[in-house]
Amino acid sequence: MRSAASSVFTTLLSHGPLTRAEVGRRTSLSPAAVTKAVRPLMRLGYLVEGEDEEARPAVGRPANLVWVDGGRALFIGIKVTGDEIIAVLTDLRCRIRLVRHVPLTGREPWTVLPALAALVRELLTEADGFGVRVEGLGIAIAGDVDRAGGVVRYSPFLGWRDVPLADIAATETGLPVTVDNDVRALTVAEHWFGAGVGLSDFALVTVGAGIGCGLVVHGQVVSGAHGVAGEIGHLPIDPLGPLCHCGNRGCVEAIASDPAILRAVRAATDRPVTDAADALALAHGGDPGVTGVYARAGEAIGQAIGVLVNILGPERVIISGEGLAAYDLVAEGVRGAFAASAFGTASQCDVTTRPLPFAEWARGAAATAIQSFMGSGMWEEPR
Amino acid sequence: MRSAASSVFTTLLSHGPLTRAEVGRRTSLSPAAVTKAVRPLMRLGYLVEGEDEEARPAVGRPANLVWVDGGRALFIGIKVTGDEIIAVLTDLRCRIRLVRHVPLTGREPWTVLPALAALVRELLTEADGFGVRVEGLGIAIAGDVDRAGGVVRYSPFLGWRDVPLADIAATETGLPVTVDNDVRALTVAEHWFGAGVGLSDFALVTVGAGIGCGLVVHGQVVSGAHGVAGEIGHLPIDPLGPLCHCGNRGCVEAIASDPAILRAVRAATDRPVTDAADALALAHGGDPGVTGVYARAGEAIGQAIGVLVNILGPERVIISGEGLAAYDLVAEGVRGAFAASAFGTASQCDVTTRPLPFAEWARGAAATAIQSFMGSGMWEEPR
Repeated sequence: MRSAASSVFTTLLSHGPLTRAEVGRRTSLSPAAVTKAVRPLMRLGYLVEGEDEEARPAVGRPANLVWVDGGRALFIGIKVTGDEIIAVLTDLRCRIRLVRHVPLTGREPWTVLPALAALVRELLTEADGFGVRVEGLGIAIAGDVDRAGGVVRYSPFLGWRDVPLADIAATETGLPVTVDNDVRALTVAEHWFGAGVGLSDFALVTVGAGIGCGLVVHGQVVSGAHGVAGEIGHLPIDPLGPLCHCGNRGCVEAIASDPAILRAVRAATDRPVTDAADALALAHGGDPGVTGVYARAGEAIGQAIGVLVNILGPERVIISGEGLAAYDLVAEGVRGAFAASAFGTASQCDVTTRPLPFAEWARGAAATAIQSFMGSGMWEEPR
Repeated sequence: MRSAASSVFTTLLSHGPLTRAEVGRRTSLSPAAVTKAVRPLMRLGYLVEGEDEEARPAVGRPANLVWVDGGRALFIGIKVTGDEIIAVLTDLRCRIRLVRHVPLTGREPWTVLPALAALVRELLTEADGFGVRVEGLGIAIAGDVDRAGGVVRYSPFLGWRDVPLADIAATETGLPVTVDNDVRALTVAEHWFGAGVGLSDFALVTVGAGIGCGLVVHGQVVSGAHGVAGEIGHLPIDPLGPLCHCGNRGCVEAIASDPAILRAVRAATDRPVTDAADALALAHGGDPGVTGVYARAGEAIGQAIGVLVNILGPERVIISGEGLAAYDLVAEGVRGAFAASAFGTASQCDVTTRPLPFAEWARGAAATAIQSFMGSGMWEEPR
């Protein structure tokens, strides 16, 4: 997404409608370069220029504005969890048009992939009613994902290794497919439309089944030279702490993920608690062993955020994920550990929470598909 | 340093001589934009175009090349340690012309600042012989430094808080002054001229009196929204570890910095060891308590590098600093802990060592002065 065209497009996606002059200011492109970028996008209908209806001034003649025509194309975004597939149909502005959930009966590729393909076919049928093409499919999966190669290298939750997901899904659906790490995909959507709009440096920390982190530095999502980035789940917090599935002890994920919390709650209460809601109920009932487990989880998350902030100095850290359901129980631990570990002025970083249901993660997957579509020049190909 | 002119300039600084076409390719600027950027820089003599003498092809007529005229301007770079001031006079290509060391008799601002000013005046006198102006002074100091404001907010080694160093030094020397964190300054020089040339993502980890880290992400040095970045010295490695000067326990710096190693060596041997060379001699003599101290330091450094690599996925990590003197004693610990903590393909990151004497740190300070000079448009002002 480095070309002038894609830079103009994403600027309009986040901030449009804008005048051409404002587009130039925000992208650091010259007026000539903006015109050169805008022209083919307008000719093919992805951008529209005119007096914007929503931004008409109260008095006087409005300036000509440029915006993205959301209705010009459709995209499908999918998030795969360990339990279900969540799919959204979005327009070119990444506005959600339809949401579908399908429970998974197993986690093996041969169970998940047919279910995924069937769901995409269902959405493609629905999309027929919109009268425009579905131009791409984005799939977001937790774990080590090689976006360029379209391969899920390792997904601990699904137990997948080296699954060439993009190729398989493209063959099954006939769509161009983008596969990315789920937190990175959500970070793209947050950067374009969410709590990261207008920020050049922020982190999105997700707590739940795992502990994830997406990073934007100097205005771009960090992907890592070898595809790994944002791995704060395996920060070593406590060498005497519980064993982690990665083989080390006392990782943040081994203390603060939902499964880790459940394990610790079982140990603290000697009860067979297997459901997060039951653990929450015990904590809200005031069981000190259980509240202690959540407090410890909060400390681990706060320390991890402190490490992030000390290393990168972002403007904002957004905490999200299904683990927010227990945030009242961990908040104090997060705050205390963050304050104790943030170095000097790094403590001024804005740490905030933001609930993002799985449909938003699927929307993030659609955002990566839009990114690929605009960035690859696919939009320029004649239909 | 985001303008087309400064982007062209730094590209030529690192990679020149280059043809204009090659400059365009490397900076993603159009031929027209390259010409527009190059023209005033050539008119004022900072760039030269011609047949480069050093790059003349064996056969045929050489293409016209553009390069930075190193002799066009001079800069002074200064690194202040707890014990001495190291100053270099460099040309516009940041090539060192003179090096001066002055021991410090105290660490208070009123002791350091006059010594610093006297050293700058000495170099200014020497510079007279070169027949070109000294255009800027860069000062590199360990700690929390606000480059934009020119203030040393907190330097633990010097015991300084909120010293408006840029203003004071500008008044004393009459030069435009850039003050930056010392590791960040060294990172600029490594990015332009050292082991970071051509890399868009790398980390420079310095071990010695403290543990520091400079980061380049997406081709730019990370400064942090609030001025703090790269603080891996205070990663919490061991909650039962030694107390750190930051108030926490078991920080990397409390285990692996030179003073921490000396403390641990004294505890292990019950001898009054106060000099790094003596500690090294004991370790090389095979004292198991002392070699254990170095091994533990290596593990802490390796864990810190693992954390960095898991979060940012750089292409390379460069280990430097005066602590490299003991690298044979810590190398195995670094390697083992890095391998154990790097997640998946992140372990493919190239981890390498590179000795950089303090004159190179002072050169980094000069590089920040060149950066300020070119980035601020000061070079465009008539003389």
